[in-house]
Amino acid sequence: MNAELASLESRLRQLEDERCVQRLIASYGPCVDAADADGAAALWAADGSYDVEGWRMDSAADVHAMVSSTSHGELVASGCCHFLGPAVVTVTGDHAVAVCESLVLLRREQPTPGTTLGHAAWNNSPTEYLVWRATANHFELKRVEGDWRITKRTSRMLNGNPAAHGLLAAGLAGERAH
Amino acid sequence: MNAELASLESRLRQLEDERCVQRLIASYGPCVDAADADGAAALWAADGSYDVEGWRMDSAADVHAMVSSTSHGELVASGCCHFLGPAVVTVTGDHAVAVCESLVLLRREQPTPGTTLGHAAWNNSPTEYLVWRATANHFELKRVEGDWRITKRTSRMLNGNPAAHGLLAAGLAGERAH
Amino acid sequence: MNAELASLESRLRQLEDERCVQRLIASYGPCVDAADADGAAALWAADGSYDVEGWRMDSAADVHAMVSSTSHGELVASGCCHFLGPAVVTVTGDHAVAVCESLVLLRREQPTPGTTLGHAAWNNSPTEYLVWRATANHFELKRVEGDWRITKRTSRMLNGNPAAHGLLAAGLAGERAH
Repeated sequence: MNAELASLESRLRQLEDERCVQRLIASYGPCVDAADADGAAALWAADGSYDVEGWRMDSAADVHAMVSSTSHGELVASGCCHFLGPAVVTVTGDHAVAVCESLVLLRREQPTPGTTLGHAAWNNSPTEYLVWRATANHFELKRVEGDWRITKRTSRMLNGNPAAHGLLAAGLAGERAH
Repeated sequence: MNAELASLESRLRQLEDERCVQRLIASYGPCVDAADADGAAALWAADGSYDVEGWRMDSAADVHAMVSSTSHGELVASGCCHFLGPAVVTVTGDHAVAVCESLVLLRREQPTPGTTLGHAAWNNSPTEYLVWRATANHFELKRVEGDWRITKRTSRMLNGNPAAHGLLAAGLAGERAH
Repeated sequence: MNAELASLESRLRQLEDERCVQRLIASYGPCVDAADADGAAALWAADGSYDVEGWRMDSAADVHAMVSSTSHGELVASGCCHFLGPAVVTVTGDHAVAVCESLVLLRREQPTPGTTLGHAAWNNSPTEYLVWRATANHFELKRVEGDWRITKRTSRMLNGNPAAHGLLAAGLAGERAH
């Protein structure tokens, strides 16, 4: 391959790698909201970690157990939505860092008392979801036998906690979480 | 074109196709929130369908009628936001499958009673939106005269309904909806 | 470079440019939610503007001042999330237009009175965010010394205001805001 072609191939591979990481992160919500423990666990490296508000999972098997748990099953059965925003991805060879914000929504059994909306559509179908969490998410990933996998995910609620701000800043800079 | 060049072109086309499908899906919310019936209908193939919670539209013309309806116009006039997340897209030649989650938000005329926030910003502008729906969306698309169009969209609320979970799983696997 | 290679390079550059604009827009929320005034200001051209609901900033320095303000600091300290959806981007040479919808969420000090959810998870951690704003965002950007920067951002709440609808329509068409 000549030099011009090799340069194009390298730029193309960079876009492909970013696309794979974005696809992986965009798959997380659909996996866990469908209670697909196998699918969710497969996003992680076997020894990858997920640290969320003091709950630390140390392996893909731990992620599998979380998605299979009674507690998670109750959320899915009553109606939940893990909604991740577009990720900012920085790929460096076989490693990557990504950052995004996310929401977790839960279906309310009863809409908020006192709600009035001036159109028929809502009154005919008065469902409502509450936003339980708004979170900063920092991902570290590596290429494992050709596929991207999460090696470390750290998530902190956006409640004034400086650790959440540190995750956002590190992610934007393409740096590992501290 | 030599083999190396053809291989690069094929990989590039794959990224371009995914980008077109993502752009199409990301256009849906802005179209319907602007009550742009022509724009929304143009996202569908002429005979494409949209099945949402038992309301079935069987053509682009049906989608046009939905966005033009009095009911939809009332939502737009009072303030609504159809917010679709990043789509996971699987392109296979001239066909594609995509999946994403989405929210529909409606402006409340009065903020929730009893709301207290400890900063001036909200108190000076006490608006609020409620999340009416959180939904699983499965898309089937095809290339029609060079442009990607939706042939079938199926949407089910995330309220414990196993059909919603099936849509998410099929979408992630790049499979058609059942 | 021969013609075939030049054509591939041109298509690749188009994808790279869209990726850069999407990355820039996806960085806005994490920047401002981390109170990173330097990072947020660097998304704008030095003389770029940001017009949001009658508050007009006329330079990157004005954006820096907004993110550094006491008012913004109070939002961050109490917990906020500026959540932007996937952007529809149209690049034309050294200029671009993009459009997306966005939410601003604020942490409630007390969950909504009367909330009942039939699972332990929420009851053990009864936090809640309210959605303060749902907004149409129109971006104009240009390439400045090799980097994409915002030259004009216009944001209007989705509250029935026709100006918000105009921003969405212009953005989807790849046209400048009026």
